[in-house]
This record gives sequence, structure tokens and C-alpha cells, in this order.
Amino acid sequence: MDAMNKDASKLLHRLAEADQAHLLRFWDQLSSEERAALTLDLHGMDFQELQGFFKKAMEVSHHSSQDRMDDRMEPVPREVLGSVTRDQMSVKSWEQTGMRCISEGKVAVVLLAGGQGSRLGVSYPKGMFDVGLPSHKTLFQIQAERIIKLQQLAEEKHLNKCSIPWYIMTSGRTMESTEEFFSRHKYFGLDKKDVIFFQQGMLPAMDYQGKMILENRSKVSMAPDGNGGLYRALKNQGVLEHMQQMGVEYIHVYCVDNILVKVADPAFVGFCVQKDADCGAKVVEKSNPTEAVGVVCKVDGKYQVVEYSEITMETAQKRSADGRLMFNAGNIANHFFTFSFLKDVVEKYEPSLQHHVAHKKIPFVDDKGQLVTPDKPNGIKMEKFVFDIFQFAKTFVVYEVLREDEFSPLKNADRQDGKDTPTTARHALLSLHHRWVLNAGGHFIDENGTRVPAIPRVAAAGSDGRTNLKDRSDLPIKCEISPLLSYAGEGIQALVKDREFQSMLIIDERGVHEQVKNGL
Amino acid sequence: MDAMNKDASKLLHRLAEADQAHLLRFWDQLSSEERAALTLDLHGMDFQELQGFFKKAMEVSHHSSQDRMDDRMEPVPREVLGSVTRDQMSVKSWEQTGMRCISEGKVAVVLLAGGQGSRLGVSYPKGMFDVGLPSHKTLFQIQAERIIKLQQLAEEKHLNKCSIPWYIMTSGRTMESTEEFFSRHKYFGLDKKDVIFFQQGMLPAMDYQGKMILENRSKVSMAPDGNGGLYRALKNQGVLEHMQQMGVEYIHVYCVDNILVKVADPAFVGFCVQKDADCGAKVVEKSNPTEAVGVVCKVDGKYQVVEYSEITMETAQKRSADGRLMFNAGNIANHFFTFSFLKDVVEKYEPSLQHHVAHKKIPFVDDKGQLVTPDKPNGIKMEKFVFDIFQFAKTFVVYEVLREDEFSPLKNADRQDGKDTPTTARHALLSLHHRWVLNAGGHFIDENGTRVPAIPRVAAAGSDGRTNLKDRSDLPIKCEISPLLSYAGEGIQALVKDREFQSMLIIDERGVHEQVKNGL
Repeated sequence: MDAMNKDASKLLHRLAEADQAHLLRFWDQLSSEERAALTLDLHGMDFQELQGFFKKAMEVSHHSSQDRMDDRMEPVPREVLGSVTRDQMSVKSWEQTGMRCISEGKVAVVLLAGGQGSRLGVSYPKGMFDVGLPSHKTLFQIQAERIIKLQQLAEEKHLNKCSIPWYIMTSGRTMESTEEFFSRHKYFGLDKKDVIFFQQGMLPAMDYQGKMILENRSKVSMAPDGNGGLYRALKNQGVLEHMQQMGVEYIHVYCVDNILVKVADPAFVGFCVQKDADCGAKVVEKSNPTEAVGVVCKVDGKYQVVEYSEITMETAQKRSADGRLMFNAGNIANHFFTFSFLKDVVEKYEPSLQHHVAHKKIPFVDDKGQLVTPDKPNGIKMEKFVFDIFQFAKTFVVYEVLREDEFSPLKNADRQDGKDTPTTARHALLSLHHRWVLNAGGHFIDENGTRVPAIPRVAAAGSDGRTNLKDRSDLPIKCEISPLLSYAGEGIQALVKDREFQSMLIIDERGVHEQVKNGL
Repeated sequence: MDAMNKDASKLLHRLAEADQAHLLRFWDQLSSEERAALTLDLHGMDFQELQGFFKKAMEVSHHSSQDRMDDRMEPVPREVLGSVTRDQMSVKSWEQTGMRCISEGKVAVVLLAGGQGSRLGVSYPKGMFDVGLPSHKTLFQIQAERIIKLQQLAEEKHLNKCSIPWYIMTSGRTMESTEEFFSRHKYFGLDKKDVIFFQQGMLPAMDYQGKMILENRSKVSMAPDGNGGLYRALKNQGVLEHMQQMGVEYIHVYCVDNILVKVADPAFVGFCVQKDADCGAKVVEKSNPTEAVGVVCKVDGKYQVVEYSEITMETAQKRSADGRLMFNAGNIANHFFTFSFLKDVVEKYEPSLQHHVAHKKIPFVDDKGQLVTPDKPNGIKMEKFVFDIFQFAKTFVVYEVLREDEFSPLKNADRQDGKDTPTTARHALLSLHHRWVLNAGGHFIDENGTRVPAIPRVAAAGSDGRTNLKDRSDLPIKCEISPLLSYAGEGIQALVKDREFQSMLIIDERGVHEQVKNGL
């Protein structure tokens, strides 16, 4: 290491103390740019803190795998549960409460958008993805327009100009492209000052001895610190202060990938407010024991999400007297917090939580500087989860909604028998909007002018049974309704009642637009 | 028509009377073989009867589309419903009753297998399809082995040699290949005399004027008369008599395409017997309003299946106080009849029922003898449905089972986002058998020896969250259990408890066979 200057020597010393000196083993071979970049990366790291994270995470990981989660789990009691199907009579009242809170400027939204679309097969943030709707709107645009519409609805109702601040958590990998995308699209009509970007932290990948992994000779392998990185970021990036200044009292946190998400859902907010809850989780009913979804439940008397991989089949299959699965509160990363709870979490509780360990196959450089892609897990990434802090809630509530109305996540690229793909997301949205039109008294006809049954046969080819008028493969009916016209199906009756439409169709605030079909 | 001999003149006369003379308009151009074939086809037809079918079917078809089905529908009352999830305590007792009936030789099975696998993209009967299980067993073989196992279980329990006669309804198109297939496979171990084939009727396709359609110059376009053709066939083919001679008292009717079907399910039979029902329908819960499934309900006070295409969205979305869909008894073509009810239906009730009309695009020959494939429906096929006779039951009951345990139909060829495909059927069976092993105390490990979570992540590629050990695409775990070993998960504990297995795996009556993975 002849070429090492004084600063580099100091860095090496720090690294050696932390048992990370191997990070500089290619120093002699690096260009000055590479040296500068590596130095900068390492400069910001608190090696002591990282070492602490690693030790605690590994301890807990080892420990928890011994315990039998099953014996410690209890289902969500009925009294803390609100359900859109079982408490239909209350939904209107919850909605009104939520709408009043919005009109008073007390509701903010936090979007978890730190992930890259790698499973989706794209290199840009998921929110920029176009699932192929007739309008070709991206997830970001759909969500932005829902916020705009909600502001309008609240204003109309309470004659009070209001805004819903939108805090968007990106990561080191997605910050720049996300901001640029919003700026290029003029914030989709939102007031620029109401869209606040912040960045979650990154953590190095480590091998099982706690040594950081180099992904090339001059770069440490880094990954976002999980969606639970939210809390640290809220503090570090001054978001909490911003919220306080804005007078935010209630916060809706959700994940970017759900095309059906009811951003700042007034019914959910209102339910939590009426129940005087400091923390709430929106869930969908898990109805099949083997469905790969985490469930909200109590463990040792405290609320948490138990991941599907932690549950035995015996517990997953347990049923209540009403025939439903006992552990059926399927987590959809859709949460409510009061500001004061969030503040306590950020300042008091969250820092003491250890990270979860994800065993990964992490590409690394060998001693010759060659990239190796392992075929077994060779190290860990450390993450926190946004729901880790449920345990600190004084009054925790659960709000159950319909999957077909509110949850269709985009996770994977299209492929045969794929779950959570652009196709399934697109179909979920079109199917919802189709139902909105039917519920508002509209009808659909096919190319021969025949009325299409309300329930179309999806994915049918050829014929059986009675209806083969509809045996095309472009089902469901392509009907898209702009969020700028309707937040949740309201306000479309004047445009659709007793009218007949042919797919494909866009309905927006300027009216009904029937589209000529092209080859697509 | 110079070339017409005396017999042909007589035929022409008959046809002219029935306004079907156009069927002979290419007579002059036909070879003598073609003439003979056409004459034979037409010889068997009762034109008067067909004309009557057509008129009645068209009347009803016209009439029923006017009515509002919604206002006439009532859900299945709780007191006629048995549910494996809501009446868990009773299932054992139902099963015992059913098993006793089987041991006494009172239970027979009727298989509806008249359809061809055209939507599936094959030209042979669906029952001969291999969905790609590790064993490569066909649907027929799986069902045959379930019957064999059930006979054994009943014999062991009641020390009484018994058999379950299996009546297999084929059609003109599938009879020969089905019989040949069973014979070639030695009836899959069943006693040949217990497998009885019979054939459902065929009906000509007609245009909207009631004229039969020629699919080529010498051949009338014919199609099976629907699965409700069962009743006419039971009589015409002497099946009812055979049942009577065998002492059959209870009959389980099901459709060939359900890979999970519990043939002669003792719990279902026992439930119906205990309830003193003459007719019963097994259903799965419809949980999404837009799911394309018919529902069992009352219409004008009588039980029937209302097809999804007949329901408005408003009705489809209605919910009971418990949050479930009000019309949620999803029909899976899986029925129970007492012999005496079936006899009454066949002899008294069914002949008076009109056919349903299916509007179809029916290829036809034009006046020049050229085949034309229309792009709009140009005629009808007439069908009856097996459930049309529910209305005649004195005591009708409904038995609700779990979809993941009992229903996965094979309808379409594999393709992206496909429903009811070979892949979904295969996954459904493997997933069920995987659960059987877990419930019996077995475990699965991956290629690194790590225990695989009970709930595997399906269709995951890449990584998120905690577990990425299992991010392969060959999920679910490939574990197949032979029906000859276990009918419904029983009897495998001795082989699997506290053992660890690696997929893929076949467990049969000779033991556990771990398979070496090949390129597949």
C-alpha cells in the first residue's frame, strides 16, 4: 500500500479496528476516481454501529428460529376489528369522519417507494411502471390523481381549501429518477410543495462473519434498510418536523406497488380516529391457508405481523367457529399512525429494535478481483419492517377491506401462471372500474350490440355452457375511470346511468371516450 | 334428384314434412358411401320431437331473458347447509355414515365425461389428459384409484367386501376412445364389471329458423345434448335398471375435469343420508362477486343453479350480515341423488323440461358446398344441464367444502394468466399432498438441507422480504401421494412423521420414492 496517502491511512486504521480492512485490499489497483468513490462510501459509515446491528440481528435470528411461534400467536379480537363487509352500516360514518380530518388538513400520506423494479424486470422505480391501462397512466400518476380528487371532495364537502401532503420515501437508488419523473410530469397536477421526497438509508451486505461484501473492487454491496427504514429516515431527513409544521395529525402509510390503493382512505382514517387508535393496519381476508401473505395477530400479547414463512401448516389451517381461518388478517402494507405515535416511535422506540436478517446470494469479488455469483446464500442483508413497531401501540386496530376493491400488488414480470404481474394488476383495476359502471346503472355491449353479462368469463377460449358470445381473450372489459373523476366509484352516475358502452372506454372528468380498437 | 332411389325418396318426404329438405340438397353430388352415412344419421332422428325441442327452447330462451332473475333469487338457508368449516364437529359422523353405506354396496358413482378436450387443445377425452404430475397419471386413473382405495377403506372398517359401481357417461365422440383406454389400462385395477360405460345423446345444431345445419355436404352438425343428457341416457341405455339390480341407493354424480374430486365422498354421501335428502349439491364458497361460477340458490322458491351470466352485479355483490356474499354457494358439478329420486326424475320429470339455448358460431356449408365459418352466432345448440332437476327434490341440501381441498377443474390449455389449466390443476394437487405430509408430521428441505417454510412462496422470482432461499420457479413442492395409499390424507403418518423429504417425491402403497431431478 505504497500509494496510500495520509487520509487513506486513517481510513485503513478505522477499518482495521472494525475488522473491515479487507475492503481496501484492491487499493493499489484502483484509479484515483475509484479511490475517491470508495473513500466517500466508507466515510459516511459508522462501523461501530454497523457491527452492533450485525451482532444483534444475528443473535435474534438465531434465537427466534428456535421458538415455536405457533404457541404464542392469538388472532385479532373482534372488538378491535372494523370490516367493510361485516360493519357495512358504519362505513359511511367512518368516511365522514375521515373526510372532515382531511378537510382540516390533518391527514398526510407516506409512500414507501424505495424499492427498484428488479423482480418486475425493470431498472427504474416501480411507481414509474405502466401496467398497460388504456390511459397508460403510471402507478405514481394514479396515486397522485387519487390525492387530488380526495382534496377536491373534502373541499366540496366542507368548503375548506385543504391539501394532503404526500411524503415519498425513495432510496439511494431511486431518488434521482423519482424526483425527475415527478418534475417532468409537473407533479401530475399536485402542488409541488405538497410532494416531499426523502430518502431511506442503505446498509452494507455482510458475510456470516460480519465482514462487508465488495460487489466490485471499489464498491461495497449496499441495499436499502427495509421499509422499516422509514422511521430512521423520517427523523434524519427532517420529515417529522415538516409534518409538525404542517399540522399533520394522522398519517396513512402505504406501499407503491398496489394499483388499487385508496390513498388517504377516509373510511380507514375515520375508523381509526373514531376508535381513538394510535396505530392501525388495513388488511384483506386470507382465505386459503397456503396463501403467501403475512398475518396481523398478537404474539405474546403484542400486535405484530407474522410472516407466512414463520407459520406452521397446523396454525395456518386453524379455523374459528364461523368457518373463517383463525389467522386471516392478511397484511397489505397499508397502515395508519397518529402523528404523536409516530413521533414516539421515531424518537423512543424504533432505534432499539434489531434488524431482521435476510439470507441472500450476494455476488462478491474474489481475491483476484473476479466477480463471483454464489449458488447458496453467502451472507445477509439487514432490514427493518414498517410493521415492527405495532408492538408499541397503545390502541391498535385492524380494518378489513375487500381484496377485489383494494389490493392488487405489482411484484413480478408477466409470465405464465404469474401472480402479482402487470396483467393481474391491470385486470384488477379494469374489473373494479367495470363494476363501478354497472353499479351506477351503466351497461356494456359487445360488437354485435348484445348486452354483455355483468360477470364476464375471464380467460375463456373456445366454448362451453351457455354464453359463447364473449369467448374472446381480451377480457375483462376495458373500462378505465380517471381518479380525477372518481375516487371510489362515486360521481359517475350522471355519465353512465342507463347508457350502453362498448369496450374499450376511458371515462374522465371531461366525459366518456370510447376508443377505436387497434391491433392491441 | 334423378339418382334418388325409393328409400331416399321416402327420406326426402319425411324431411320435407319437417321442413328439413335442404339437408339433401347435395344428394346428387354425394358418393354412395356419403349417401349411406347421411341416410343413417337422419334415419335415427325423430324430426317431430326435434321440432318440439326447438320451439320450446326458443320460447323459454326468449321469455327468460325478459324476467329479472334478481328479484326471484333467495340464498340457501343455513338449515339445509352442511359446511366442513362451520360444522367441523359433524364431519366425522357424516363420514362414518357414508362409509357404512359404501360398505353395504349402496353407493354408486356417475361420471360425466362426454366432453372432448377441445378448449384444452386436445382431440381425445379429457379424462385421458396427463397434467404433468410426477407419476404422469391421467384424470381417469386418479379417479379410478380413489374408488379402489375407498372400497378398501370401507371393507377394512366394516369387514364386508363391497364395490362402488362406476357409471361413465361418454358421448358419440368419446365412447370408443374411452372404452379402449380403460381396457388398455386394465381398468386401473378396478373390476371390469364395476365399470359401466354409457353414451349420452346428440342433437343437431339448428339455425334460427329451426333448420338443421350441415357441417359438410353429407353430415349434419351434431353436438352432445349437455350434461343434463344424463337422465335420458340413464333410461335409454338401461343404466337405471342396472343400478336397481345392483342395489344402488345413493348416487354421486361428478364431472371428469376436477382433479381434486373426492369420488363417492363418504362425508358428502353421509351428510345427505343423515339429512334424509333426495338431492344434494356440493359447493365451494364464492368469495369474489365477479367470479364466473354458477350459484346454487332458490328461484321462485325452488332450488336451482343460477349461472354467473344471469346475475346482475347488484345481486352478485349482496352480502349477508356475516360479511359473506349472500349468493356464495358456488356450483362445482358435484351432486348427490337417491336412486328413487333419480328414477322419478328420469321417468316423470325430466322429459318435460325444455332445452337451454346456446347461441353459437356454427360452421356450415353454403349452397356451393363451401365451408363457411361465421363471425357472429348463426344458430343454436340445445342442451340440458344436470342441475335442471334440482327443482323436483323434496329435500334438497347443500354441502360446502374447501376449494383448495376439493375443486380445481381442468378447462383451458396452458397460457399466460390462464385459469383452470394443466398447471393450475397440477399445482392444486401437489399443494394438497404437500399439506397432507405436513399435517402428518413430515417436513421438506431444500437442496441445502434447510427446512422449507410450510407456506412456500409461489411464482416468486428474485427476492424481497425475508426468505429468498426458496426463490426458485419450480414451486410448489412436488410431492404426489398415490390415491392407492391415501384417499384424503389418512394413513400416511407411519411413512412421513418426523421425516425430512426433498422434492420431488412420490409416496405410494409401496413406500416413499424420492426422485432424482432431471432437466424437467
